[in-house]
Amino acid sequence: MSVMTRRNAFYAQSGGVSAVINASACGVLQTVRQHSDRIAKVYAGRNGIIGALTEDLIDTSSESEFAIAALKYTPGAAFGSCRYKLGSLHEHRAQYERLIEVFRAYDVGYFFYNGGGDSQDTAHKVSQISAELGEPIVCIGIPKTVDNDLAITDCSPGFGSAAKYLATSLREAAFDLAAMSRSSTQVFVLEVMGRHAGWTTAACALAAEREGDAPHVLLMPEVVFSEDRFLAKVNHAFRRSGNCVIAASEGIKSPDGQFLSAGAQDAFGHAQLGGVAPIITNLIGDKLGLKCHWAVPDYLQRSARHIASETDVEQAYAVGRAAVEFAIGGRTAVMAAIRRISDTPYRWDIVEAPLSAVANQEKLLPPDFISADGFGITEAARRYLAPLIVGESYPPFRDGLPDYVKLRNAIVPRKLSNTFAV
Amino acid sequence: MSVMTRRNAFYAQSGGVSAVINASACGVLQTVRQHSDRIAKVYAGRNGIIGALTEDLIDTSSESEFAIAALKYTPGAAFGSCRYKLGSLHEHRAQYERLIEVFRAYDVGYFFYNGGGDSQDTAHKVSQISAELGEPIVCIGIPKTVDNDLAITDCSPGFGSAAKYLATSLREAAFDLAAMSRSSTQVFVLEVMGRHAGWTTAACALAAEREGDAPHVLLMPEVVFSEDRFLAKVNHAFRRSGNCVIAASEGIKSPDGQFLSAGAQDAFGHAQLGGVAPIITNLIGDKLGLKCHWAVPDYLQRSARHIASETDVEQAYAVGRAAVEFAIGGRTAVMAAIRRISDTPYRWDIVEAPLSAVANQEKLLPPDFISADGFGITEAARRYLAPLIVGESYPPFRDGLPDYVKLRNAIVPRKLSNTFAV
Repeated sequence: MSVMTRRNAFYAQSGGVSAVINASACGVLQTVRQHSDRIAKVYAGRNGIIGALTEDLIDTSSESEFAIAALKYTPGAAFGSCRYKLGSLHEHRAQYERLIEVFRAYDVGYFFYNGGGDSQDTAHKVSQISAELGEPIVCIGIPKTVDNDLAITDCSPGFGSAAKYLATSLREAAFDLAAMSRSSTQVFVLEVMGRHAGWTTAACALAAEREGDAPHVLLMPEVVFSEDRFLAKVNHAFRRSGNCVIAASEGIKSPDGQFLSAGAQDAFGHAQLGGVAPIITNLIGDKLGLKCHWAVPDYLQRSARHIASETDVEQAYAVGRAAVEFAIGGRTAVMAAIRRISDTPYRWDIVEAPLSAVANQEKLLPPDFISADGFGITEAARRYLAPLIVGESYPPFRDGLPDYVKLRNAIVPRKLSNTFAV
Repeated sequence: MSVMTRRNAFYAQSGGVSAVINASACGVLQTVRQHSDRIAKVYAGRNGIIGALTEDLIDTSSESEFAIAALKYTPGAAFGSCRYKLGSLHEHRAQYERLIEVFRAYDVGYFFYNGGGDSQDTAHKVSQISAELGEPIVCIGIPKTVDNDLAITDCSPGFGSAAKYLATSLREAAFDLAAMSRSSTQVFVLEVMGRHAGWTTAACALAAEREGDAPHVLLMPEVVFSEDRFLAKVNHAFRRSGNCVIAASEGIKSPDGQFLSAGAQDAFGHAQLGGVAPIITNLIGDKLGLKCHWAVPDYLQRSARHIASETDVEQAYAVGRAAVEFAIGGRTAVMAAIRRISDTPYRWDIVEAPLSAVANQEKLLPPDFISADGFGITEAARRYLAPLIVGESYPPFRDGLPDYVKLRNAIVPRKLSNTFAV
């Protein structure tokens, strides 16, 4: 029997945060503490991978058991996240070499990276270069994205809670609108996050229990926006129901391929969106003469831990736990992926997905999830979506508000003499 | 002992709805059912007072006990509400005579009107004209407004739940922002409803537990917006905390008295607002060069029954119950008002307030609730606000979503031959 080496781990959170990415952190940290014979410390990167590049590390061993457990019900990213995409190995080799340098200095043998498609790509590249440099580091990806656009995994932690928040909020706003539409607002537009994939917008349809229930119109980025067809659909819904509720993705595009709401770009080169709802609203007011209200929940939808999906929380925890188990089981260059075993009853487990297959992929709504007219979802989509929002997982409350944890996030004294600019 | 006359009641919901106005309806209907010796049926106006004017009545006696009980956890207005203000007695006497005509036709001896300041004014006028016409009708007001701007009553049902939703959402978004601000969004602006009164915006401050916590800046309509002072405040907060969270009322005005976001008018002649957040955001981006996100929850904040304040739900129910008890106790021309007995422990009861004193009043934030710099609240405000959001009152969930009730809302066959246009 070989003597096991006890090494440290590095964990970082990346990209837009969610209501449950800290539940994954909880899964990682609690599982590591159960395997202290194999993994000594977990260093967390302050503000994601930037923390590794700048040697700005957090010693998670100084956090109490209570604080670690509280991560399971705390939104945001407890160690800080970032929008910072490492470039190609070829052109930005210095970044990767810097990561290896920092990991070597802290005897890091395990790299856990918790994020979306870009992050899985980074984890993959770190795995490649560490092997190339003869200092192999176990690299495990942990999925996270409210957009649900990660490949291979059946769904992504963060999505189920955003979906539950959106469907709940839309149902509630629809009750409001129905009460007011006789003499006031007739149309309500809810703007939903989701750059290219319409999963979150599609999830709004779960608010409808019966034919004719809100939402009456979905605008998903997978379907090119046609003004005429859209206005006809809204008018039809309004004539039939006396009001009309619309869920519109921030990422819908006009026939010329432009975002309806043009905007700045973020650090990843992705378009920075927001503001589709007022545009849609003005259109309906001008062309149909209907009185509209609109809402843009923005960050509220991805941080609403108070209405998180219990299924999502459990899956977020499970991928964190599985990542550690894969690592100590000798696996590397894989992501902990959720596999669906059955819809009804909903059953799932965690499997390995090669990082190479997940990296930089973007999973859009499949055509058979979108209704024939492009403004709704199919029964197949509903079967897929329905179990992901099931179960409530309320945080504790104190003085009427969720009692979330803020970690100590103790600074680790730097060991390296050189610095690295990001 | 006098023989009590058994007559019918009319109940209507008015104005913008809330998470708990149906809890007041529940209080009315359950209490009436306990006093069936005095009140036979409760007719509800479909879409508020419009239902009375147009003889479009709902027979609430056809609703099951279960459905009535479910109103306590269902947002919106179960019978429909309206934005329809009856004019002055002098100029619009026909409207009031029509109400009396309809009430006479249905043997309505009790008028319960559930709404804001305008509605209390209507109830007051109905009381006056019914006496004048020799057909006295017992008129009782039931308070409701998320804006919390009703006079006399210590707070208004609907406000506590909106406050809890806003403070919770802001705290969650602040966790999100804090995680991202190193490399992405630096400022977050939450736009809050509230036409003239800053109660809802002030309530956002409850999200802060310690000095320096979000929100860092409040923009309340009671304080004239000064661009220079605002930008200096944001810059200071950002330099100190590394990010800045702002809660901005839709009703903030520039020094010339104009709403920052000008817009159309609603049926009551009130300005129709919305869209302050993007304006504030653009200003900060242009002048301070900070990257901003903004959210406009709009109807979500007043219909978020899933995160209602238990205190608010209980008060909403209590004013509905008290309204019936006042009526059968021989009181008229009063509103059921909440009286605060103590802050800590929070104790309250229900008292009568004369409709004449409540009608058309608007209670703004008192000066001693606003901090010296105008961008925050005082300890006095915090003592007032804190108990109103305490307690959770979750609705039942089914398939992952709140299981709200839709009433049968059975039509009552019309008795009158003439119609009335609204």
